[in-house]
Amino acid sequence: MAYVDLERENTIAVIKLNRGKVNALNHELVNEVHDHFEKLEDDDTVRSIVLTGCGAFFSFGFDIPGLYDLTREAFTEFLVKFTDVYRYLFLYPKPLVAAINGHAIAGGCMLATACDYRLMVSGKAKISLNEIAFGATVFQSAVEILKYWVGPRTAQDILFTGDMYSADQARDLGLIDGVVSSEELLQRATALADSFRERNLVAHAHMKKMLRLPVIETAMRHESATIEKFVDIWYSDTLRENLRHFEIRS
Amino acid sequence: MAYVDLERENTIAVIKLNRGKVNALNHELVNEVHDHFEKLEDDDTVRSIVLTGCGAFFSFGFDIPGLYDLTREAFTEFLVKFTDVYRYLFLYPKPLVAAINGHAIAGGCMLATACDYRLMVSGKAKISLNEIAFGATVFQSAVEILKYWVGPRTAQDILFTGDMYSADQARDLGLIDGVVSSEELLQRATALADSFRERNLVAHAHMKKMLRLPVIETAMRHESATIEKFVDIWYSDTLRENLRHFEIRS
Amino acid sequence: MAYVDLERENTIAVIKLNRGKVNALNHELVNEVHDHFEKLEDDDTVRSIVLTGCGAFFSFGFDIPGLYDLTREAFTEFLVKFTDVYRYLFLYPKPLVAAINGHAIAGGCMLATACDYRLMVSGKAKISLNEIAFGATVFQSAVEILKYWVGPRTAQDILFTGDMYSADQARDLGLIDGVVSSEELLQRATALADSFRERNLVAHAHMKKMLRLPVIETAMRHESATIEKFVDIWYSDTLRENLRHFEIRS
Repeated sequence: MAYVDLERENTIAVIKLNRGKVNALNHELVNEVHDHFEKLEDDDTVRSIVLTGCGAFFSFGFDIPGLYDLTREAFTEFLVKFTDVYRYLFLYPKPLVAAINGHAIAGGCMLATACDYRLMVSGKAKISLNEIAFGATVFQSAVEILKYWVGPRTAQDILFTGDMYSADQARDLGLIDGVVSSEELLQRATALADSFRERNLVAHAHMKKMLRLPVIETAMRHESATIEKFVDIWYSDTLRENLRHFEIRS
Repeated sequence: MAYVDLERENTIAVIKLNRGKVNALNHELVNEVHDHFEKLEDDDTVRSIVLTGCGAFFSFGFDIPGLYDLTREAFTEFLVKFTDVYRYLFLYPKPLVAAINGHAIAGGCMLATACDYRLMVSGKAKISLNEIAFGATVFQSAVEILKYWVGPRTAQDILFTGDMYSADQARDLGLIDGVVSSEELLQRATALADSFRERNLVAHAHMKKMLRLPVIETAMRHESATIEKFVDIWYSDTLRENLRHFEIRS
Repeated sequence: MAYVDLERENTIAVIKLNRGKVNALNHELVNEVHDHFEKLEDDDTVRSIVLTGCGAFFSFGFDIPGLYDLTREAFTEFLVKFTDVYRYLFLYPKPLVAAINGHAIAGGCMLATACDYRLMVSGKAKISLNEIAFGATVFQSAVEILKYWVGPRTAQDILFTGDMYSADQARDLGLIDGVVSSEELLQRATALADSFRERNLVAHAHMKKMLRLPVIETAMRHESATIEKFVDIWYSDTLRENLRHFEIRS
């Protein structure tokens, strides 16, 4: 595969996003993430998984220049796939730790919030659902998952302001669980993932399903409609104008 | 209109409850609030709205002396209208800031919690859902909206005790967002409303709908039944006796 | 009745679990709890109820040695009864205070979280949903009720770690409401129960129903399936092995 690296450390798999400088999300990368997680689900030698990014970014979000010229149909297809994978990770039966090694923005933040725990590097990295800042929106599942972690009132603040949070701020909001130095990040994330080694993973998976399935059921009542609305806004003149200024190269 | 004043400041509309000394809520006032908001929804020159009260009160709640003699049917009709408007405001597409200039009690507190943000005057003013104190109850939508802001456990405390909270206490509970001096209240509320001026309001409205529609859907499963129960309790001998002591003149 | 004591103090009923050293939960005890609460529901001289344990334990949870040899059918029947009673208490119309006099573990913790308030003795007593520690799981209603008190993120921590919390830790998590010395516990719990004496209990019961019925409705969508899964795990080889080491005598 081209955009995702897989490493193993004993019973832990480390999945690393590896696409250009900012790990921008496109259809191929999302497909690869999905394929990796599906294979690891059935692999009994893997008990827990760490998700991180190569380089200086976790993920800066959607590959806007790459997605900009898609037809409405192809872009909708991408969003359906992305939200499927996002919800699949949130319901993933094995423990899942995000090691947020750099900026985790928009779709990148969504991938991180689909994990069970988030450790984030201290320093300049930011985490944000900044869609409102360029006039875009999110999906029902992103809203429900955000509510799950921080409650509705803080979720509203995060979405309405689109603020970029430092790791310390994100920890205070409940958006991440711990702030770690760059040198220690992967080791600490691996240790956290490893703390589930002795667990009965059948019981763990069942608890996780009980905690989260009702959240996803609420999301699914509106998921298609909110993806459609996302697309409407994406192809509006206002957003086309805003998106044209994005220069992030993937 | 008789009971609601409308002022404009650039792209912001300020709606002021203006009915007697305490801005007691009756059918006419609720109708007027509704009419104003409906007109402003379609007015592209208005980007956000501030809701406040004239005089020393935000609103002391229902006009009990005025409602006391209504037939069961007419009172039910009032409650249906009130809860319709309350939910309509909670789902209102434009940003909505409550400037709580004085006591916001019972139905008055509900109107305030239907807004996106609440700034409250420091000092003696209280905010409360004090229905239990005189043996009355609330509606399913009031419960769900309260849970949205403060979580179920604090919502329970607020409803079970009927406590009257100062602005500082209410901020600590998460029931309001900021405490402001009387002199600065309207200016600060207007500035907060104005902070949305540059936003894509289509995207903002969509985010708001995603955050809140599931809350209202839960409420609607029980809204009619809880209004009926409210009416049963209102016309019970115990409550008739309690209500007779209310002397608040609207 | 054999396993539950009932005492009265004015308008307050005190229900005391009284089964062996640890108040281990079996079918008979759960039936007795149910019968007591059903009778007190219709007793107009009783306005509120305190639930506590005799001896040094609130309840250490299921009577594992006693349940170990049950057929799958009989064990399922026990779980259906237990969850019925647990949900019945959570929706109980009268105010209900848990006086946690000692360890409240697993099923014991569930009984405590079904009450409206929890006062817990300071010192060595622990409260925990420690099912994961021995490879077992919980029920959808236990998850939803836990979320109600502490929010989804803390609920997840409690269930994923199975940690044993001191009273002080439990108060910081929002799992209990107050920490009290052993000498004062029953008096303080009774005073809290008595604080509802002047209330309109019809209005109070209605508020409680509005706060909690949607929680139970969510739980009921999955309750049977999660009980079945609980049974599958209970009769798995791994758990049989773990349970064999339990020596708690009821």
